[in-house]
Amino acid sequence: MVAPSRMSTARALRSGVDARVTASLLARKGRFGGVDDAHGWLADAARGRRMETTRVPIDELAGWRRDESNGYLRHETGRFFSVESVAVEVRGSGAASDAAESSGVTRWCQPIINQPEIGILGILVREIDGVLHFLMQAKSEPGNPGAAVQLSPTVQATRSNYTGVHKGRSIPYLDHFRDPVSGALVDIRQSEQGAWFYRKRNRNMVVEVGDEVDVLDGFRWLTLGQIAALLAVPDLVNMDTRTVLACLPGGGTALSGALSSASAGGFRDALGRSADPGAPAVHTTEEVLSWITAARTRTDLSVESCPLHGLPGWQEHDGVISHHSGRFFSVVGAHVRAEGREVACWSQPMIEPAGTGVIAFVLKRIQGVLHVLVHARSEPGYADVVELGPTVQCDPGNYAGLPASARPRYLDTVLSARDVRFDTVLSEEGGRFLGARNRYLAVEADVEPAADDPDYRWLTLAQLDELLRHSFYVNIQARTLVLCLRAAAVG
Amino acid sequence: MVAPSRMSTARALRSGVDARVTASLLARKGRFGGVDDAHGWLADAARGRRMETTRVPIDELAGWRRDESNGYLRHETGRFFSVESVAVEVRGSGAASDAAESSGVTRWCQPIINQPEIGILGILVREIDGVLHFLMQAKSEPGNPGAAVQLSPTVQATRSNYTGVHKGRSIPYLDHFRDPVSGALVDIRQSEQGAWFYRKRNRNMVVEVGDEVDVLDGFRWLTLGQIAALLAVPDLVNMDTRTVLACLPGGGTALSGALSSASAGGFRDALGRSADPGAPAVHTTEEVLSWITAARTRTDLSVESCPLHGLPGWQEHDGVISHHSGRFFSVVGAHVRAEGREVACWSQPMIEPAGTGVIAFVLKRIQGVLHVLVHARSEPGYADVVELGPTVQCDPGNYAGLPASARPRYLDTVLSARDVRFDTVLSEEGGRFLGARNRYLAVEADVEPAADDPDYRWLTLAQLDELLRHSFYVNIQARTLVLCLRAAAVG
Repeated sequence: MVAPSRMSTARALRSGVDARVTASLLARKGRFGGVDDAHGWLADAARGRRMETTRVPIDELAGWRRDESNGYLRHETGRFFSVESVAVEVRGSGAASDAAESSGVTRWCQPIINQPEIGILGILVREIDGVLHFLMQAKSEPGNPGAAVQLSPTVQATRSNYTGVHKGRSIPYLDHFRDPVSGALVDIRQSEQGAWFYRKRNRNMVVEVGDEVDVLDGFRWLTLGQIAALLAVPDLVNMDTRTVLACLPGGGTALSGALSSASAGGFRDALGRSADPGAPAVHTTEEVLSWITAARTRTDLSVESCPLHGLPGWQEHDGVISHHSGRFFSVVGAHVRAEGREVACWSQPMIEPAGTGVIAFVLKRIQGVLHVLVHARSEPGYADVVELGPTVQCDPGNYAGLPASARPRYLDTVLSARDVRFDTVLSEEGGRFLGARNRYLAVEADVEPAADDPDYRWLTLAQLDELLRHSFYVNIQARTLVLCLRAAAVG
Repeated sequence: MVAPSRMSTARALRSGVDARVTASLLARKGRFGGVDDAHGWLADAARGRRMETTRVPIDELAGWRRDESNGYLRHETGRFFSVESVAVEVRGSGAASDAAESSGVTRWCQPIINQPEIGILGILVREIDGVLHFLMQAKSEPGNPGAAVQLSPTVQATRSNYTGVHKGRSIPYLDHFRDPVSGALVDIRQSEQGAWFYRKRNRNMVVEVGDEVDVLDGFRWLTLGQIAALLAVPDLVNMDTRTVLACLPGGGTALSGALSSASAGGFRDALGRSADPGAPAVHTTEEVLSWITAARTRTDLSVESCPLHGLPGWQEHDGVISHHSGRFFSVVGAHVRAEGREVACWSQPMIEPAGTGVIAFVLKRIQGVLHVLVHARSEPGYADVVELGPTVQCDPGNYAGLPASARPRYLDTVLSARDVRFDTVLSEEGGRFLGARNRYLAVEADVEPAADDPDYRWLTLAQLDELLRHSFYVNIQARTLVLCLRAAAVG
């Protein structure tokens, strides 16, 4: 048992962490240089870590087999992941409960990646010169645009990696993330893209070490401020880094204090006040939780396995599975040659989206406190029916040629907004997705959904921060945007 | 949108609710009398609400059919619920992650109730003479011991009830619990018995009304203090009432202040301090959440449908499905005749446990703050692998004749404890379970699991209170015990 002398209140410790996170966010310079140095290090690290991805028909992928009965695509060892397909039916989402029975029922079929193992996305953190530094890795993935090196977590490991024959001995720093974990600032399972993954969950971890650790080739200690600055560079900070750092305590009154002195009355002041759990909010946290409960109760999400062979709405030509309309995404095969990896080449299926998406928060200052308009959203791969997503999350190309009424709510508001606080194209997990890019936007706009709109609510950053301590409330796209807002706070 | 003038901080509102809940808990007397009056009202209400339950072979239940292919037992309308069966495999629970691959794998088959609809368990609350009163219902269920009337929530409604042809018009007070809900003090989905139900979730609600409402026959306004006192009467406060009230804010510093003045240095003082989120705790909330994440990551729970016909380990004789050993539970048929209900008689299958269970919290004062020893527990019907259960939750009869090493941890500690703070036999949901009774205990004992024991942790009541704002952290047995401790605080 922890010695009683170590006992402390949760509140006291949490506010200590908030202050340390804020100090690191404000530090554009760390022990190992400033933002340019970090950028230069990544460029250097790219040499010797190149990756070359060639397209291959999915039936010619070495080591992968189609299941004869249903056409699912699996690795011959049974490991890694499989490409399967599901029939989806959503009922009641976006409708008030009274109307649920009569409202539109939406049905479709689609391929989906099944990767049931819970992996670890871990970042090691250490106080250096009194400031938290995060141990980042320069790493390439085959689906990264240009197969480029991106800023990645200390550890990305699947369970097969760390419980297999080698027990993960080949994965550096993994031991810091094994149970029992001590010094965890973040340790929570979160979902990933529910449109492409069936119930994929990863364990997001930030673990603090006291002692010095060896920094291996390809790794570097960076402050949060340096990482935040790099977030403005297209396709540079990878998705796993973004989700893990978004789960860090958001700064609370420490961030609020730092920003109010810097820009009283301005956007950053409003953003800082939004991080303060003591600031006034449009809805109480109880009201927000009740709204989420209502959405999860109202929405019936049925997701059933179905054969990939002859999947309704989809076609298979030249070893690529794509939608008849050319919209959404395709399943493609890739052959990968990698420099500087233990395994020099391999083949795998990947998901390739049809276009570049738009992922945006609409922001609004209400009584001087910045509020974020979140959307209660259902995706077939969610573990718990509904998660909170960005105000807008779509691929506008999927709506080309459709009537204006079919366009997602607030998409045009976002695209025409003048008060743009963040705007960068970032890419998604390059280990599974080929060239998946989204334009991440945060804009201020004067929109006003009805107070009892079943689908949208204004939340403060402190409320999102509170929800991020728990699993499956805030989706992966919204998590990236939370981190982008923190970057905008100090940018 | 809520008018800005109404904006307030979540903290301020929460502490206001804590104070009002505490005042109601301290009120042994309400507008309509004291504890004896409430008890007398229930006894009176029992007249005219009698229920008679007769056993019937499951294949002779009017309106119920066995599915020919798998033997599942369903209602001919497809409504209500069905009795199905599952093959369960649990891997890694209770084992550190390194040992998970080699640790014992547990496998079994069992019948299970499938009731996928999310029902409403709702209690209406109103401030009367400055004190919160809860609108309780005197209601009988066929499986209640002696088919007796119990203290039940204002509303217990399945979704079929309230979205069907009648839209629930026959369910009194239901409109207060329809979306959009306003004035919710509690609004959260929680699980029920994961050993008997497959992913059953109900929406637990406490909704405050400002205006006077008609009190129908069989209903009565009671204070929390009255209800807490009735909790000491065997089988009187029903399970649904217990789970809903356990989700109420736990009193925080208001309860702490009230109890410290009443019994400085004593058990109640320690209990009050435990409700205060500012009191020192053995583990920070971050450590507790990390421990839950580890348990949910480590445990692989596989639950697959399998035929009920010829279920391994189970037998069917004289229309009863029971385990070969006579342990665990049976599936039985019941014919019910009810007085004072719209439907005067019906038939249904029920689950009948083999014995009376023991459900207990071990308590310990650590630095003057009461801590509760919770157990990370996996049950086949849980939506998210692991929930926090009581220190002990078992039917001791299941271990008769087995070696002592097979007995559940802390069972003997609990049964031999001298400092007993709560001890009452209470019954479980009589709509599905026949005579399911458990002895609920809270005892102080000087046990000390290892600091890194993967299965047990010491938590304060404030920490349990925080977890109870979210779904699927605290199991239904532990929720009843949380309410029992609040009763012990003022008993």
